[in-house]
Amino acid sequence: MTKTPKAAIIGGGVIGGGWAARFLLNGWDVAVFDPDPEAGRKIAEVLANARASLPALADVPMPPEGALTMAASITEALDGASYVQESVSERLDLKHRVFAQIQQVAPGVPIGSSTSGFKPSELQQGAANPATIFVAHPFNPVYLLPLAEVVPSAASDPAVIETAKETLRGIGMFPLHVRKEIDAHIADRFLEAVWREALWLVKDGVATTEEIDEAIRMGFGLRWGQMGLFETYRVAGGEAGMKHFMAQFGPCLQWPWTKLTDVPEFTDELVDLIAGQSDAQSGAYTIRELERIRDANLVGFLRVLKDRNWGAGRVLKEQDKRLAALMPAPVPETAAPLVMARLQVLPGWIDYNGHMTESRYLFCASETTDNLLRLIGADMDYVAGGHSYYTAETHILHRGEARLGDRLTGSVQVLGADEKRLHIFVTLARGEEVVATIEQMCLHVDMKAGKTCPGAPEVLARLLPLAAAHAALPRPDAAGRVGRKV
Amino acid sequence: MTKTPKAAIIGGGVIGGGWAARFLLNGWDVAVFDPDPEAGRKIAEVLANARASLPALADVPMPPEGALTMAASITEALDGASYVQESVSERLDLKHRVFAQIQQVAPGVPIGSSTSGFKPSELQQGAANPATIFVAHPFNPVYLLPLAEVVPSAASDPAVIETAKETLRGIGMFPLHVRKEIDAHIADRFLEAVWREALWLVKDGVATTEEIDEAIRMGFGLRWGQMGLFETYRVAGGEAGMKHFMAQFGPCLQWPWTKLTDVPEFTDELVDLIAGQSDAQSGAYTIRELERIRDANLVGFLRVLKDRNWGAGRVLKEQDKRLAALMPAPVPETAAPLVMARLQVLPGWIDYNGHMTESRYLFCASETTDNLLRLIGADMDYVAGGHSYYTAETHILHRGEARLGDRLTGSVQVLGADEKRLHIFVTLARGEEVVATIEQMCLHVDMKAGKTCPGAPEVLARLLPLAAAHAALPRPDAAGRVGRKV
Repeated sequence: MTKTPKAAIIGGGVIGGGWAARFLLNGWDVAVFDPDPEAGRKIAEVLANARASLPALADVPMPPEGALTMAASITEALDGASYVQESVSERLDLKHRVFAQIQQVAPGVPIGSSTSGFKPSELQQGAANPATIFVAHPFNPVYLLPLAEVVPSAASDPAVIETAKETLRGIGMFPLHVRKEIDAHIADRFLEAVWREALWLVKDGVATTEEIDEAIRMGFGLRWGQMGLFETYRVAGGEAGMKHFMAQFGPCLQWPWTKLTDVPEFTDELVDLIAGQSDAQSGAYTIRELERIRDANLVGFLRVLKDRNWGAGRVLKEQDKRLAALMPAPVPETAAPLVMARLQVLPGWIDYNGHMTESRYLFCASETTDNLLRLIGADMDYVAGGHSYYTAETHILHRGEARLGDRLTGSVQVLGADEKRLHIFVTLARGEEVVATIEQMCLHVDMKAGKTCPGAPEVLARLLPLAAAHAALPRPDAAGRVGRKV
Repeated sequence: MTKTPKAAIIGGGVIGGGWAARFLLNGWDVAVFDPDPEAGRKIAEVLANARASLPALADVPMPPEGALTMAASITEALDGASYVQESVSERLDLKHRVFAQIQQVAPGVPIGSSTSGFKPSELQQGAANPATIFVAHPFNPVYLLPLAEVVPSAASDPAVIETAKETLRGIGMFPLHVRKEIDAHIADRFLEAVWREALWLVKDGVATTEEIDEAIRMGFGLRWGQMGLFETYRVAGGEAGMKHFMAQFGPCLQWPWTKLTDVPEFTDELVDLIAGQSDAQSGAYTIRELERIRDANLVGFLRVLKDRNWGAGRVLKEQDKRLAALMPAPVPETAAPLVMARLQVLPGWIDYNGHMTESRYLFCASETTDNLLRLIGADMDYVAGGHSYYTAETHILHRGEARLGDRLTGSVQVLGADEKRLHIFVTLARGEEVVATIEQMCLHVDMKAGKTCPGAPEVLARLLPLAAAHAALPRPDAAGRVGRKV
């Protein structure tokens, strides 16, 4: 058993809270230091959002959640911490003071800064140990969006940077190594360009905040969640590719397509104009409601990408592999139904009745069964080798309704198994309460031949003892509805 | 029966082809004029992509696809057309010539231009009838992304603009009325700002095209597909809202966070640098492959948003309502299983075996059953009134495997019905070949009381005659596996 790692989070606002949640849900202990008396409440709110969304991205059990403590001082927060993330206000003098305090106690600990704009060389100024201070810039919501821009300076220790990137990968993030330090790193340069242009459009009365948001999310915003700027344009260029696209749009650089040569004056009037329009646009929802809507949408997008092993979805798949490797070796000695899945009912799973839509009951059963198959060695590699278990028949009995946010367990009892057949009974439950049972007959097939065939010896060597152990269990009342002649 | 409307598409590249596909799949006849001898092939390729993706966004049957003709001249294309969309190259003189030719033949027809940059007043210069020429700027892929920026000038006829917006809504788009004409409208001003900044970053060696794309799609790109710029920042501001956010980030306007005060020189060297990096990043895929990946991702995102009735998903829901209203009154006189759903197997529906994942079989059955319920009047409004049919039990028999791209029909036979019960048998077939059958027992419930109760008289008035008619049908061999005591 390795010791649970611990992260110290200095600054507990929306960003610090998001970091805390991501570390905790990925099994790290976390100590937060923030002098704000409201910090504890704020962190708890972010954590509640994270608990309701992040686990829905995993297809393997998440590790046990780490322990959260609110520390009374930076020194207390640092005790035992192997990583520090600083997320205090964007004031360089304040950040310098925080780093000095940290390095007085723990001069060697890696310190990532959430700064949006400061360069690492600026952060390092006057530090006792500049080599361990770097930028690790996340994006809100930190617990869902994988990006962390990791920016070292020439004074950084490359080994510290590599370790930090590995830490970030370990909590499911995508560390983007920014090789050349620059104000605002990469992503925020685009955000700033768009922000400035947007301020002009509002100020000049061309568009309201709502119209601007629609112009983004009904069009290119959808594209950018899965391909970025260049890949999108490469596709737009057609078979002729990127050169063709550039030849076509190159001349626009000389056209008056943006107001980028100037910056609007930041007056109270402009602030009022934008705040008023934003109220008209989004005021029907509270910020908490908007957060939940945003998170549910992001979980949906991320699951889509995961289904396709693309972009951010690939990061999720890699995190699953990492989590799976941490799982204890599983086939148990004692006869008991195996809890093979823990799922949470997401907003997109709800139908017009307000309950979990019916195909999701079978989805939950499939998640359960897939984990059982993985357990007996009929995993992705096995399928890639041309063999798999196919479902021939399914019987579902609905015993109750699953609702939004319900946490369900999927457990499985092996009713019978032989060389070619696997007869299972899955129970989906909310706590002790059964919401549905799913009985299935699965057949082992040679996928290329399209015919049943015996399972591989190493799979049967795990399956048959499990079936023998489960034969001692009482047979569920509802079982017995499947049994097509095969 | 109303006459099938017809659109004339002038210019048949990626954009013109996308318009053609969107009109065709939404039931319009389309004539395309493009002197390029390759135009027919190009349109066919775009149409194939559109057929593989757009119908997957609808939950009601799409109208029959319209007829496509390649016209030999603008005059021929215009014959009978009630809407013209111009998508020729971005050269103002060429566009003026096209408009003149159109207005010689059909001076009153509305003409939308796909221009990315020209203002409507520029397009209207020298026209016989400026009032009917306006900007209708779409986003690639036109058949999937709902946004169309509709920009009139002071010379535009407001009635023409309103009709055009209604036409665009009719083909499932979101017409964003841009109230003040401006170079590059709204969205492309942002794209141009980002593009210029991106060129600098590549030129200065700060980031490669791939690193820039990751900085977008791993972070803010995901946010922008569902909320735009301002709503995202409103949430980031927390309970203090937009004013707080602006106070926090206002000062950045004075910081050197972008290179927006200057434009990089557009040299061959820069083009080669970017094209080379793009090859390294995306060259493993052909453009056709990237198109399919992009479309599958976008369909996934859009379905997520549709599940949540949010943003672009709301546009899809409204389009369903529009399409449903066009459907003929349905309960048939003759006894035959009812074809209630036509579905296509999408990439996200495929499991690691390469077949449709098992929960999607039940999903397809649910789509079929939901349409049956709608048909008998147990629709969303009925559910909102507190009553619904709940599934108590399901039996699935797998007869074959559905694969990527398969077009499936879901047909339903009513095996029995009384005041409280609905016993149905759904067949999913690819052409004549049955891939699965799904037998279900549904119970009519008072949702608030959580108890079964008789269906409303108007629902039973449709259901019971249908059940009586279906009683004459042969009972499927596979039926009889459900029947839990209720």
